[in-house]
Amino acid sequence: MKEKLKKFREIVKQKKKIDSTLALIQWDMETVVPKGGQKLISEIIGELSLKSYELSTSKELIDLLENLNKNKNSLTELERIEVEYLREENQKLKNIPSEEYQEFSELTVRAQGIWVEAREKNDFSMFKETLEKIFEYSKKFAKYRGGEEQGYNIALDDYEKGMTTEKLDDFFLNLKTELVPLLKKIQSKKIDFSIENNVSKENQKPLSKYIAEYIGFDFERGVLAESAHPFTLTVSTDDVRLTSRYFENLPFSSIFSTMHEGGHGIYEQGIGSELKDTILAEGTSTSIHESQSRFYENMIGRSKEFWIGICPEASKYYEFIKKENIDELYKSINVVTPSFIRVEADELTYSLHIMVRYEIEKGLFNGEYAVENLPEIWNEKIKEYLGIEPTNDSEGVLQDVHWSCGLIGYFPSYALGNAYSAQIYMAMKKDLNIEKLLLNGEINKITEWLHNKIHKYGKSKTSQELIKEVSGEELNIKYYIEYLKEKYSKIYQL
Amino acid sequence: MKEKLKKFREIVKQKKKIDSTLALIQWDMETVVPKGGQKLISEIIGELSLKSYELSTSKELIDLLENLNKNKNSLTELERIEVEYLREENQKLKNIPSEEYQEFSELTVRAQGIWVEAREKNDFSMFKETLEKIFEYSKKFAKYRGGEEQGYNIALDDYEKGMTTEKLDDFFLNLKTELVPLLKKIQSKKIDFSIENNVSKENQKPLSKYIAEYIGFDFERGVLAESAHPFTLTVSTDDVRLTSRYFENLPFSSIFSTMHEGGHGIYEQGIGSELKDTILAEGTSTSIHESQSRFYENMIGRSKEFWIGICPEASKYYEFIKKENIDELYKSINVVTPSFIRVEADELTYSLHIMVRYEIEKGLFNGEYAVENLPEIWNEKIKEYLGIEPTNDSEGVLQDVHWSCGLIGYFPSYALGNAYSAQIYMAMKKDLNIEKLLLNGEINKITEWLHNKIHKYGKSKTSQELIKEVSGEELNIKYYIEYLKEKYSKIYQL
Repeated sequence: MKEKLKKFREIVKQKKKIDSTLALIQWDMETVVPKGGQKLISEIIGELSLKSYELSTSKELIDLLENLNKNKNSLTELERIEVEYLREENQKLKNIPSEEYQEFSELTVRAQGIWVEAREKNDFSMFKETLEKIFEYSKKFAKYRGGEEQGYNIALDDYEKGMTTEKLDDFFLNLKTELVPLLKKIQSKKIDFSIENNVSKENQKPLSKYIAEYIGFDFERGVLAESAHPFTLTVSTDDVRLTSRYFENLPFSSIFSTMHEGGHGIYEQGIGSELKDTILAEGTSTSIHESQSRFYENMIGRSKEFWIGICPEASKYYEFIKKENIDELYKSINVVTPSFIRVEADELTYSLHIMVRYEIEKGLFNGEYAVENLPEIWNEKIKEYLGIEPTNDSEGVLQDVHWSCGLIGYFPSYALGNAYSAQIYMAMKKDLNIEKLLLNGEINKITEWLHNKIHKYGKSKTSQELIKEVSGEELNIKYYIEYLKEKYSKIYQL
Repeated sequence: MKEKLKKFREIVKQKKKIDSTLALIQWDMETVVPKGGQKLISEIIGELSLKSYELSTSKELIDLLENLNKNKNSLTELERIEVEYLREENQKLKNIPSEEYQEFSELTVRAQGIWVEAREKNDFSMFKETLEKIFEYSKKFAKYRGGEEQGYNIALDDYEKGMTTEKLDDFFLNLKTELVPLLKKIQSKKIDFSIENNVSKENQKPLSKYIAEYIGFDFERGVLAESAHPFTLTVSTDDVRLTSRYFENLPFSSIFSTMHEGGHGIYEQGIGSELKDTILAEGTSTSIHESQSRFYENMIGRSKEFWIGICPEASKYYEFIKKENIDELYKSINVVTPSFIRVEADELTYSLHIMVRYEIEKGLFNGEYAVENLPEIWNEKIKEYLGIEPTNDSEGVLQDVHWSCGLIGYFPSYALGNAYSAQIYMAMKKDLNIEKLLLNGEINKITEWLHNKIHKYGKSKTSQELIKEVSGEELNIKYYIEYLKEKYSKIYQL
């Protein structure tokens, strides 16, 4: 048994090292590599991914897991969770023929290049065939794993354990019923709070860095760089990497990207050191991850008190920010304007963008929709929920990278993340006077609360366990809807 | 035979891929990784290095090489050179016990951290013991490979095939005899051409990028980033990476670093595509590499005609650069001032810095010197050759990273590179009107000449073969001395 555990730890260590190497190379791919080096770096990523996959599905590991599982009474609590997690992961993969899995991996590497080109040329037809294949594989894999009936639920479960179309239909129906009328009310007021200000990149960068550190991101164990699309990447919990992007005419875009990615990064850095060498040293799910990034971006970054608290520092770089203008600033960063691009959407319309993607994925799985009709379906839904219509595919169906990466079932996490973030926010309010802390610059107490309630557990607790412990109940969308209604009724004086 | 060749190509491909992965990770280590990630990334580098070493010294490869060598008549010219090169590499390693080689590798990884700290704290005694061990290994390896007598020659041969202390003694004696009096003459004139100008980093960066591209560096197959110490790193000939550094009060430091590293980068990018999948797709030696970097930095970058040619563009970012001031500018970038730090040395005193290092390495190998006395020995030599005395170890014996990396025998390449660069420059003058080309902005013809005469051959020709073909004779230091005498006699009106 001792021998088996030792061997198990060795394999985990090896796998973690391959995954860290892969993360380092992916970081390079996204932030450094010149055009000429792309082919080689893709090959290296492909080989390392395969190696990681082979290790995860090796007979040696599977046998070990079965053996450890049989003797689970002599395992520690953490070891039991780790073994169980890896067994489930293996369960997922074991019914997929490995050649097909490999084909799918290769397809998604190629698909990203094709998607980039199609988006650049505004031409969905260039991507159509590839996307059809990706959904075919995804459906086929779901069938291998869950039989005929499960379908899309299998894909959903990969990102949020136990999630089903039944639950999500209900979730989105609630959202739609409440938010679409709210949006219409706001639009009928025809108020525009936006203010225009240009800030040079040289002034944006230090403020982004300052804010990342201010909210709790540790630069001894992380970096903030620049990339075309902001993202967070974990090499290890001691090496967490964020990117932001800087538009001179949109000075708050970089701030909110930094706070969003900063939220992801703080979560990863906050994982307990006792999990460091285990497979559990990661955020527990994409939804909870998104709850943390959205919490910092919206509940904190789009609050009035946060800006009052950092006003002295912020005005050093953004000269137009003044104490006497914070009200105006607050309204301007909370303007509600339906727009085409999800990542630029305001807080209120954001989840409606997700709903479109959810309905399309579901429709493709159950045969209601066909890939070739996606541009029209997309545009119709955007028109229905947001009242505007995309004029081309890159501001429509081609805008997101996810499908080209094979991430089917991922999008709902964003909306669930929003809902989690509001429920966590409400729970936090019972313990902390958030507004006062922000006014006094004591944001560290907020981050500390999140560390203790969520971050430190990594994957050792599920989303469900966490939300139950934090808030005393299961995920309940009413908090999110209440939060939005309250906030925007005040801003727009509804 | 066909089977054997195929297997050989497979192993070469595998080794190249590991080395490229290693280069990507090293790039990250030097330019990105936060403090917290250093330990893990060092481990990953250690493992990949070991893997590359094991592949290079595997019995399978050695047997293949012997077999191919026996049948060399059925190999192409390139294959023969490749097999011969790898056989020699193996010959070098095979006499070193692999445990000792491994110990040495681990030592040098640790040594770099120790050196950094010792340099920061200005305290050689912190580094002494480690440096003693490094030299012990280096001497022991030389003995394993060449017996009792060869000593330092073995280390020299690693960087410049066929180089010996006999040749270098003669080389440096010549240099000393000619340059030390020249330097004294210049100093007796007591003229200071230096001009002070501050340029913001934001203006320095685009000019560095412009110049790198202007001299021929291809940004489709390369990048220019920032790091504490400028360097060049090759992931593949299609992905070559430079760094520079920017001091606001030394606006030409970044330009010359960029041109220096750009020279290295242009060499690597210029390697013929027929060598791409071979082991020969690298610069042929450190000396020839250095000849290219020094050529662009000094012969080009410190010439009057280059600055006249780029004046319109340069003045956009460096406002004080004006057509009517180029004479003054020219003198200021060629000021001769003995100083402590090699990488900041002027063209004339540079090789004297190298001589100090050469004499110390030689003295340590033949037992004349002991590591513990190095600070004093160093300072005495600097005083003798340059007339100034370091006041602490970080501006003295602790300034260079090389020894901590285990690079013993490397330094002379810098001086040899200078000599090669002058000899190549003289040969080029017979074919091209360099001054006119620079005035007209046709520097591409200069780079093209170097591509055809040097770059494209990669490792398929040795330094000796190249210089013979380019100049019609062996390396001859007189060209370098003539070049310096002529240039600086004019500038200082001696």
